[in-house]
Amino acid sequence: MRLTESQIDEIAAQRGAPTQTLRPSVPALEALLYTPIELLDHGFLRVVDYMGDDSAIVQAARVSYGRGTRKVSEDAALIRYLMRHRHSTPFEMCEIKFHVKLPIFVARQWIRHRMASVNEYSARYSILDREFYIPEPAQLAAQSVSNRQGRADALPPEVAERVMTMLRADAVQCFTDYETMLDDGEGGIGLARELARMNLTLNTYTQWYWKIDLHNLMHFIALRIDPHAQYEIRVYAEAMLTVLRAWVPAAAAAFEDYRMGAFTFSAGMLAVLQRMLAGEAVDAASSGLSKREYAEMLAALNRTA
Amino acid sequence: MRLTESQIDEIAAQRGAPTQTLRPSVPALEALLYTPIELLDHGFLRVVDYMGDDSAIVQAARVSYGRGTRKVSEDAALIRYLMRHRHSTPFEMCEIKFHVKLPIFVARQWIRHRMASVNEYSARYSILDREFYIPEPAQLAAQSVSNRQGRADALPPEVAERVMTMLRADAVQCFTDYETMLDDGEGGIGLARELARMNLTLNTYTQWYWKIDLHNLMHFIALRIDPHAQYEIRVYAEAMLTVLRAWVPAAAAAFEDYRMGAFTFSAGMLAVLQRMLAGEAVDAASSGLSKREYAEMLAALNRTA
Amino acid sequence: MRLTESQIDEIAAQRGAPTQTLRPSVPALEALLYTPIELLDHGFLRVVDYMGDDSAIVQAARVSYGRGTRKVSEDAALIRYLMRHRHSTPFEMCEIKFHVKLPIFVARQWIRHRMASVNEYSARYSILDREFYIPEPAQLAAQSVSNRQGRADALPPEVAERVMTMLRADAVQCFTDYETMLDDGEGGIGLARELARMNLTLNTYTQWYWKIDLHNLMHFIALRIDPHAQYEIRVYAEAMLTVLRAWVPAAAAAFEDYRMGAFTFSAGMLAVLQRMLAGEAVDAASSGLSKREYAEMLAALNRTA
Amino acid sequence: MRLTESQIDEIAAQRGAPTQTLRPSVPALEALLYTPIELLDHGFLRVVDYMGDDSAIVQAARVSYGRGTRKVSEDAALIRYLMRHRHSTPFEMCEIKFHVKLPIFVARQWIRHRMASVNEYSARYSILDREFYIPEPAQLAAQSVSNRQGRADALPPEVAERVMTMLRADAVQCFTDYETMLDDGEGGIGLARELARMNLTLNTYTQWYWKIDLHNLMHFIALRIDPHAQYEIRVYAEAMLTVLRAWVPAAAAAFEDYRMGAFTFSAGMLAVLQRMLAGEAVDAASSGLSKREYAEMLAALNRTA
Repeated sequence: MRLTESQIDEIAAQRGAPTQTLRPSVPALEALLYTPIELLDHGFLRVVDYMGDDSAIVQAARVSYGRGTRKVSEDAALIRYLMRHRHSTPFEMCEIKFHVKLPIFVARQWIRHRMASVNEYSARYSILDREFYIPEPAQLAAQSVSNRQGRADALPPEVAERVMTMLRADAVQCFTDYETMLDDGEGGIGLARELARMNLTLNTYTQWYWKIDLHNLMHFIALRIDPHAQYEIRVYAEAMLTVLRAWVPAAAAAFEDYRMGAFTFSAGMLAVLQRMLAGEAVDAASSGLSKREYAEMLAALNRTA
Repeated sequence: MRLTESQIDEIAAQRGAPTQTLRPSVPALEALLYTPIELLDHGFLRVVDYMGDDSAIVQAARVSYGRGTRKVSEDAALIRYLMRHRHSTPFEMCEIKFHVKLPIFVARQWIRHRMASVNEYSARYSILDREFYIPEPAQLAAQSVSNRQGRADALPPEVAERVMTMLRADAVQCFTDYETMLDDGEGGIGLARELARMNLTLNTYTQWYWKIDLHNLMHFIALRIDPHAQYEIRVYAEAMLTVLRAWVPAAAAAFEDYRMGAFTFSAGMLAVLQRMLAGEAVDAASSGLSKREYAEMLAALNRTA
Repeated sequence: MRLTESQIDEIAAQRGAPTQTLRPSVPALEALLYTPIELLDHGFLRVVDYMGDDSAIVQAARVSYGRGTRKVSEDAALIRYLMRHRHSTPFEMCEIKFHVKLPIFVARQWIRHRMASVNEYSARYSILDREFYIPEPAQLAAQSVSNRQGRADALPPEVAERVMTMLRADAVQCFTDYETMLDDGEGGIGLARELARMNLTLNTYTQWYWKIDLHNLMHFIALRIDPHAQYEIRVYAEAMLTVLRAWVPAAAAAFEDYRMGAFTFSAGMLAVLQRMLAGEAVDAASSGLSKREYAEMLAALNRTA
Repeated sequence: MRLTESQIDEIAAQRGAPTQTLRPSVPALEALLYTPIELLDHGFLRVVDYMGDDSAIVQAARVSYGRGTRKVSEDAALIRYLMRHRHSTPFEMCEIKFHVKLPIFVARQWIRHRMASVNEYSARYSILDREFYIPEPAQLAAQSVSNRQGRADALPPEVAERVMTMLRADAVQCFTDYETMLDDGEGGIGLARELARMNLTLNTYTQWYWKIDLHNLMHFIALRIDPHAQYEIRVYAEAMLTVLRAWVPAAAAAFEDYRMGAFTFSAGMLAVLQRMLAGEAVDAASSGLSKREYAEMLAALNRTA
């Protein structure tokens, strides 16, 4: 069970109590507000607050006195210009706050993004829930040989089953002992929470409030939605992209064109490109690039939209 | 004239267009939204957006699913606890955005606060207005002898008048030449804006959008509302305090008790305090503190609420 | 075994190869350089590089052209002044880099200090060592009743023994399964490293390079050396204090006086203090403070140096 | 006179006093240490300290125990890989500190890079020198028509002369009045320094100590060495590139290939590129890109190394 009865009620209560504001509001994002987007087996991402919209980017870039009278198309063109030329400060003028439930090993990758504010549920102060991430068989992939930090094909079903059994058994054993250590009843141990927690496995779920500005959110998405990112954090980045499109459609479109769909050619790659465009047949050996760089460049050139 | 007709209209248009939202709203801050608080002779500070309220601090600290059913007094007690123990991350969960008009020499102090987002009106791209800060006579104070970076008493009126005349004449002369250099009409010079601007004086007004979280806002206010801060930035900090009280009354009260009204005793001062409380008559010489530290400590002990 | 033979050799090689430099050097810190300070059962902290000394703080504050001719005592007085008045930027001018080995649950607290640079040993890319933190019996304390995130007295020896057995058994079981999942030999599973790691317990050791400036280092120490900080991170903060004293003795002395040994009285506490100094007998009830605040104030006043 | 006699002596004193260290040293950077690189008419940039070298990047990426036994070529390949895949944290492990003298209007652009530490010479506390930036005739360019924030051709010599005369006269007049206001002698005004400084023009020189890590330094250089950056800050970025090459040659080479010489193709541009490589004749109209984007893409493709 991802949410308790009372949590569902609390969320419904918030969704049922609109107020008036003079601030800019975004109906498409209001429609998503508070409701969890379910991810992995027990996780979620939900928007709990936001500030600003596409217009706020434009107003900040112009340091303007009001919403102005320009057309939506002019605003979108300015947003594209700002994105293309990496003028990042106007995008910092929008802010969003999420409540996220995620496995601890994902939380450890996530937190490396320092330009954000975080309040995590404290296992020094409170007791965690008995919830662990157990991957679906399709996600239980072999170690990649070519990429030392990646996955190859899924394991055969019976091997995957064996892994799931081990993961589940170990997590349950550790959690049961965690509870035993915490038990402060008659004959119990009553160990301090801050100590007992060290017995939990890294697939135990934690949760936090996480606030970030639009510029840094897009940076997070760009890095974590990448095919080389670990699947278990990628699903959160994909949910964020859905949120992004609802919240700031013009910025999201520019982001998809100039960041997600873009490729940076090095000076060396540009030289190869010039030779190719001049009609020369270039291959890895004659390119002067390393094998890996040549392959990366070719992949970008053969990419389909 | 601080605002043009059309700027006043734009602000009125924004104040006249409420929307519905499911986000928390703060009526007392909505009442201030968009309207400039006038400061110095041509400056202002106005709130253009905000996110969160006192409850948002509490919700983040508890990583909660909704607004909960606790009493306002319980929330205030938690906020006081967080403030006293410098648990700063829950205060980062609220955000505010200002539009500020201010003299350049004030902007140069202000920008030293790095934990904020800024978009400044660009004098590379646009032409600045003919507006300079000329202090009122009461503010034209002599250099302090005791404090190398402070002011002493106001100058005699006729001397103040002489200063104002100089400031005004130099600013006008520089601005007039700035316009002459920019003039790209028949027979004009047409100098690049990015070059012409170097001829302006540091009391010329600039403006920016400035976004900051509540934790860093309180840090800014604490440093800049201090009697040792320069008057010309202090007036902005005082306006922010007014905004703070309207926006997050519980956090503002805790801030005034634990930060603004507080004093930190060093280990050495605590030792002196213990001797005093034990009935010993301690003076500067016998305190073991430096003269300056002893004076600072005494000032704190004689402070009236 | 905390370090392998070859690691010890690598460290010795670095300690045996001095070079010449025109930069400021600190002999007392050079004496510590590279050598691990052993902490907990398998952890350590070692300095791998540093930049600046006490003079560098003073030079930055004065924006000076050289080391100047002032006396050491004048420099120390300026450092005390900067510390007392929270002029933090000159302290940012010194930098230090550590290599740290620490349990994952400690790493999770540590990383909340965002103003630092980190490179962690990657369990996506590499295989972790079979090393877990098992507390000594003296550290296995019961949950505190008065402080929801603290420890009370140590558990009785036989109960502590039971906890240690559980911690060890679970960590070993999880690590053994981790190895089984990773095994890519004949008949092995060969699971991707980024997946297998989720089966590890939170007391598994990790390691990282961590670089921070002096201002933020002192902030870290002040928060983590506090008696309310968890013991397992406090030992690292204490080792850092030893390093601090060797590196920048004048700054360290000011830090111990104005930060570590200091106490901040709120406006309300100052009012109580004034009544006490005027000879009034004040108790918790008549103080107007909350019970907790009154107790905290009293503790500070009764503190022994 | 850029430096006084005594400043030259202080610098010479520092260059004449080598010490021993166990830290990594970089002879090519030691050769530059402390000596000002002269820029503009009165400005300079000089390295006052540094930490780390190319190896430090590699050690952090590998979280290693020593300098290791890999070849220089392997280290360079890893540095190239880290740069290409934007793994920025290992580059944060090197740090450099500059002393910079620069016009105030340049300082205002510069300070927008927040990820750095700064101590500026305080005009609240001290009196500035009578030094202003007056551009050379070749730099006095007309406002660009196509680029609202750029320069076109140089002004005709007699017009440039007129501008220089105005700039010089206004700066001198303002500075003379600044001194008059500060004069606290018999019959003088004795205005507070923090007030008098507002009368200075934006081309007055200021100076600061500025410390930044290698990752953020490269970001600064990339943005400010760009042909679209203002000439007066570009000269500082160019001096930094010289320093970079001396300090970390492998990182500098990777930076020049993957950042400075690189171009990012958007999704839309990649589609056009694919059509071109397939032999289709594409022009601005048929490209589907905006005129500006098409022109930017073409410029990149026609760029010579």
